[in-house]
Amino acid sequence: MQNCLIFGLGGIGSFYGSLIYRSGKARLSAAARSNYRTVKEKGVSITSPMFGDYHVQFEDVYNTSNPNSQSGSPKQFDYVVVATKALPNATPALPTLLEPFITPKLTTIALIQNGVGIEDQVAERWPENTIITCVAWASAMQVESGVIEHKDNASITLGLFENERVDTEIAQKRLRSFSNLLISGGGDVDVQENMQTARWKKVVWNSAWNALTTLSDLDTYAYLTSSPSAPATARAAMHEVITVAQALGLPIPFTLVEELMDRVGDRRINSSMQMDCRHKRPMEIEVILGTPLRKAKEHGIAVPVLETLYTLLTAIDKRNAELRSSKA
Amino acid sequence: MQNCLIFGLGGIGSFYGSLIYRSGKARLSAAARSNYRTVKEKGVSITSPMFGDYHVQFEDVYNTSNPNSQSGSPKQFDYVVVATKALPNATPALPTLLEPFITPKLTTIALIQNGVGIEDQVAERWPENTIITCVAWASAMQVESGVIEHKDNASITLGLFENERVDTEIAQKRLRSFSNLLISGGGDVDVQENMQTARWKKVVWNSAWNALTTLSDLDTYAYLTSSPSAPATARAAMHEVITVAQALGLPIPFTLVEELMDRVGDRRINSSMQMDCRHKRPMEIEVILGTPLRKAKEHGIAVPVLETLYTLLTAIDKRNAELRSSKA
Repeated sequence: MQNCLIFGLGGIGSFYGSLIYRSGKARLSAAARSNYRTVKEKGVSITSPMFGDYHVQFEDVYNTSNPNSQSGSPKQFDYVVVATKALPNATPALPTLLEPFITPKLTTIALIQNGVGIEDQVAERWPENTIITCVAWASAMQVESGVIEHKDNASITLGLFENERVDTEIAQKRLRSFSNLLISGGGDVDVQENMQTARWKKVVWNSAWNALTTLSDLDTYAYLTSSPSAPATARAAMHEVITVAQALGLPIPFTLVEELMDRVGDRRINSSMQMDCRHKRPMEIEVILGTPLRKAKEHGIAVPVLETLYTLLTAIDKRNAELRSSKA
Repeated sequence: MQNCLIFGLGGIGSFYGSLIYRSGKARLSAAARSNYRTVKEKGVSITSPMFGDYHVQFEDVYNTSNPNSQSGSPKQFDYVVVATKALPNATPALPTLLEPFITPKLTTIALIQNGVGIEDQVAERWPENTIITCVAWASAMQVESGVIEHKDNASITLGLFENERVDTEIAQKRLRSFSNLLISGGGDVDVQENMQTARWKKVVWNSAWNALTTLSDLDTYAYLTSSPSAPATARAAMHEVITVAQALGLPIPFTLVEELMDRVGDRRINSSMQMDCRHKRPMEIEVILGTPLRKAKEHGIAVPVLETLYTLLTAIDKRNAELRSSKA
């Protein structure tokens, strides 16, 4: 039996955590913030069209909003699965929050987060630990504290974050072992050699649709039909991100633009960033648009559309932060 | 005594109209929409640090929201001064609304409106009339129906809109005569040979600041200090508009960018477009960003920042229009 911790119990963290729990092959603990009290008392309830209704009870539950309150030092974890929003500029930074749960060299850190460049802070703090980087495809939301509605999809794409200071065989063994936990619990796991390509492909999508739905506060269909310029601007944003990815040596072709335009089609998608903006919550701007923008500057690539979207979102994010602090 | 009509009695129309009234050299009528009833009964009251408090009584007042209700046909006007918001896509279009007031060949049409390309609809409908095109600098707002607060500045830049089908001498005489009315009333009139250059210079400013304050819903200072990308994006938008203006043969140098950055400095400016957006009113997107964008496409010039701003504003304008019609 391995010791696992789910760090961040929103819809996505709770759902993938529940797969590990369902495997029966690990002792599962959790670190929660806003829903800490509920989860500590009652665990998490999940409704799912794929798995029915079920319940997850954690071995230990830690309160991340007050790290010092933890009675005794946490056990040694084989796996810490991070499923929080990716906000590299937040304070305290992610490594500070993870500190009590990571054993140097031993703990494998699995990051289930949006965006690109998300591994850097953790890799820098724990250069000798194995990092697994994951793209989640499940649709799962927390509808009330500790109650998760899984809508569909149990897929997850994952692979190793390159790290020459960890022995390859050990890293591969940890990756297989982690995959098996998810598979045993009912997950549909796609292990990829080059996760950065997978991540950047998803960012091509997110940089356009999260930004454009947030700034217009329209769903994808309403946005796309608002003017003849609307599809052109979406294509331009995606094209710029692909140009940056190619400069980084990632094999992402420009044909991905039309593939993603077809995928959005006439669906009416509202993005998570749009919802965060409506509720004046911090937005994942840096990992979705900021990293591509910084890489573009490093490589001397002009990305005017991306920079305009990034600039406007950052301005709005700052306005929202001020509204939050004036209410607090 | 000449017959003048002010078409559109918001802050700007009422203020410049009041200068004509103060001149004592014209019979002044008005065409109003939302404040029609008040203006018909009581005229317009103006408070001004430059001219004191005064009152304007109109000879006739017409209701533009119901053109058919006008009792009898309007008199023949020497000057029709249009001071409505410039919305070329609105229905009914401006020429339809102006129709009852314009005598072909005889009436001089003075347009006090924002943006570029605003003369085209009127020039097409009345190719043999003199058109005077104006940039207003006064700060004047309607604080309640029929009550105008003039804050400062009585300047107006104006000149002829080029039209080879009107005799130059006649056009010049009409221009002088119109200038004299405003000057006699206390106005500070700057007659320019090339009004298109003056208009495009103002659009360089407006395309950046109206768009960026509206999309971020921040004043210029809060926007500019929101991230290091914020000033860069403002500069990029202005640079693109100047590139288009240069392609049209207008002598506007790129040094205007820094001149306008200095002019905004650390002032906290909220734009009229931002206020329109907050109140879900139609925004002057087409005349401020749309015309430069269309001219750029005609000349094969890439204007990615301008196009992104235009696209987002148009999407929001559409969303606001739907909110208005769902409330109506």
